[in-house]
Amino acid sequence: VTDWAQRARDLDAADPLAPFRSRFAHDDAPRIYLDGNSLGRMPLAAAGRIEATVQAWQRELVGGWHSWIDAPVRTGDLLAEAVLGARAGEVLACDSTTVNLYKLVHAALGARPGRRVVVTDRDNFPTDRYVLEGLAASGAATLRVLDCDPVLGPAAAEIEHACAANDVALVTLSHVAYRSGALADLRAITDAAHAGGALVLWDLSHSAGAVPVDLEASGADLAVGCTYKYLNAGPGAPAYLYVRRSLQGSLRSPIQGWFGQRDQFAMERPYEPDDGVRRFLAGTPPILGLAAVDAGAELVGEAGIERIRAKAGSLTTLAIEIVDAELVPLGFSLGTPRDVTLRGAHVSLRHPEAWRVCRALIEHAHVVPDFRPPDSVRLGLSPLSTSHEEVAEALTRLRDLILEGVHLRIAGERTRVT
Amino acid sequence: VTDWAQRARDLDAADPLAPFRSRFAHDDAPRIYLDGNSLGRMPLAAAGRIEATVQAWQRELVGGWHSWIDAPVRTGDLLAEAVLGARAGEVLACDSTTVNLYKLVHAALGARPGRRVVVTDRDNFPTDRYVLEGLAASGAATLRVLDCDPVLGPAAAEIEHACAANDVALVTLSHVAYRSGALADLRAITDAAHAGGALVLWDLSHSAGAVPVDLEASGADLAVGCTYKYLNAGPGAPAYLYVRRSLQGSLRSPIQGWFGQRDQFAMERPYEPDDGVRRFLAGTPPILGLAAVDAGAELVGEAGIERIRAKAGSLTTLAIEIVDAELVPLGFSLGTPRDVTLRGAHVSLRHPEAWRVCRALIEHAHVVPDFRPPDSVRLGLSPLSTSHEEVAEALTRLRDLILEGVHLRIAGERTRVT
Repeated sequence: VTDWAQRARDLDAADPLAPFRSRFAHDDAPRIYLDGNSLGRMPLAAAGRIEATVQAWQRELVGGWHSWIDAPVRTGDLLAEAVLGARAGEVLACDSTTVNLYKLVHAALGARPGRRVVVTDRDNFPTDRYVLEGLAASGAATLRVLDCDPVLGPAAAEIEHACAANDVALVTLSHVAYRSGALADLRAITDAAHAGGALVLWDLSHSAGAVPVDLEASGADLAVGCTYKYLNAGPGAPAYLYVRRSLQGSLRSPIQGWFGQRDQFAMERPYEPDDGVRRFLAGTPPILGLAAVDAGAELVGEAGIERIRAKAGSLTTLAIEIVDAELVPLGFSLGTPRDVTLRGAHVSLRHPEAWRVCRALIEHAHVVPDFRPPDSVRLGLSPLSTSHEEVAEALTRLRDLILEGVHLRIAGERTRVT
Repeated sequence: VTDWAQRARDLDAADPLAPFRSRFAHDDAPRIYLDGNSLGRMPLAAAGRIEATVQAWQRELVGGWHSWIDAPVRTGDLLAEAVLGARAGEVLACDSTTVNLYKLVHAALGARPGRRVVVTDRDNFPTDRYVLEGLAASGAATLRVLDCDPVLGPAAAEIEHACAANDVALVTLSHVAYRSGALADLRAITDAAHAGGALVLWDLSHSAGAVPVDLEASGADLAVGCTYKYLNAGPGAPAYLYVRRSLQGSLRSPIQGWFGQRDQFAMERPYEPDDGVRRFLAGTPPILGLAAVDAGAELVGEAGIERIRAKAGSLTTLAIEIVDAELVPLGFSLGTPRDVTLRGAHVSLRHPEAWRVCRALIEHAHVVPDFRPPDSVRLGLSPLSTSHEEVAEALTRLRDLILEGVHLRIAGERTRVT
């Protein structure tokens, strides 16, 4: 039998990012937190950023807007540089992922007159599908929903086929799938969509801060994502959107607001959108929330996204080794790609009693995973704040819990498990 | 000559809300802040609420969502009760005013099939007009923009006339006009719109927290507003929306997101909106921002909106008396209704050199007003955080500055003045 704990300690000893763990708030409890892909741990620097913003509100009052007015662009530029492989002036931090997705899908449909098909896959994140269903219900779009491999996610050939009739306005997919953790081939899928004349919009919520995104190099047109997972910006922190610079002039947000107006304080004029990415702003941006985004994005920039990717690979590889050796014999199967280049930073274990397994982990083993219907125990291995030792210990506790049948004694109905 | 300072001190001595001034952060500088209707002062309690939320993030991590999930409704209920004259389950705190306005205008159009005219007035707040212009440009609406009295704002008879052809889906207006401070007759205008079969949507940004709103009693259908003015929730704090309970089932948000889904974590299902007001949620709500909204709304509730209205009347009446006596002879005119029952808590002074006057006040008199194009010096007299003595002192400084011609020496071009 392998001494997983020793193996994990060896990996931690060789991990160049190990010191980053202490840059986050931890607790003294025996809790092992493997849900950083749902809500990331708090960077210690975030508290200071938030406090400084509160002080600026108190001290500068409305004068603070001389600086705050640029906050969505400034934070967007930081995300572009440190996280997204984009250029300055292509990213805004604002609104929620859902609202940003709505704005960009609507804008993409407007930029492709004569086409109204939007392609996505059935395993795309629920809010993404809901936004598309809403646009379809209003008659603005026709959906083409692909049934892709539940573990590997959409392949370029499927997208090429879906766009072959030259009727697709937009392909929208998640870069890393929320349930399986599958990492889509950004470049190949983008090329496949472009071959059919479609624009491509990527949801980066589960990839940004865990793996490189390379929006620029991939040729991607549009993207959105949240900041509260691997970017550690706190509950309900502002989301972001990306619009390739060459497209900005031809896309219009359906939600025309005063922060997207070319001359915001010439209030007597009709609406005329800003030339650049600001045209995708709507209302007053959430200044307090943006402060925390900066703290998280700077940590990613400091660690370096390539080193973060390597750590994600190392953590997930260790997890999969332990799952294969210890948990597959107990009825689990792996719901995440085995090829390290094809996954993000979370691992999904499938089990018929996944909901009870999750509850048992939380209530009896001080391990926090999350449950994703219908049958997945999702383990988020946030690279900057998780050690190999935690991974080994959590999976050992899971094995012991199953061996003792603890999960079978969980009562109640399936509800949200966090 | 009147001793304005003495008169102001007498009014302060008799003011039952005077103690509330110390519940806000103030500075030692000689600055007089009369822009609380742009960004309100920070309640001292807000810092603690924000800090507690940061602690909850750090300590509870994803488990915090067991409580946060209800935050938009909880804060909405607080606003409904303390500020808006609405019932529990009718108000959500979420998104920005612009995004909420977009959602509700879109929903109202959907609920009035066969009608596509939206009525507003030319002096409505710019972002409101921009949202409507966007919907008109997309073909979803036809605008009927009224030219109302620039000081008194829209009258019920004008609305009745605008809706007479029974083709109006929605009337949307500001309760208090951002420039003039005119207070619209919520009930009479709502009745006039209903007589023409239209729904009514009120923007409460400049009235909520300054005067009673009485959504329930007025029969209003829909409302939106921001929380960073008289609700003192900080820069870019979450906005709110109101949907009368009897209408909730028949209105659908165009932005279908996972927080508006009936069973949010049954992720494999198609979208089905929540039965109640939650259907107007879209993405993940901004938890940090909501904490500050609570602090501001509770102060309003504690002071009582009727007492706040009385204080607003007293402050604006004093201001108008001083303007009439000291500033009208120097070339100013009043841009705000003289009848105290027809105005909110800010006073607008019109002057051909309003921009230079504002700059001179800020740079040479330590008074912070704001400039609103083309010719208004706007003085926000936030009832809970402003004293009569500040009003008298600010206007005395303004008089002296004009007498000395300080404003004539301001160089540069008109830009935003805050």
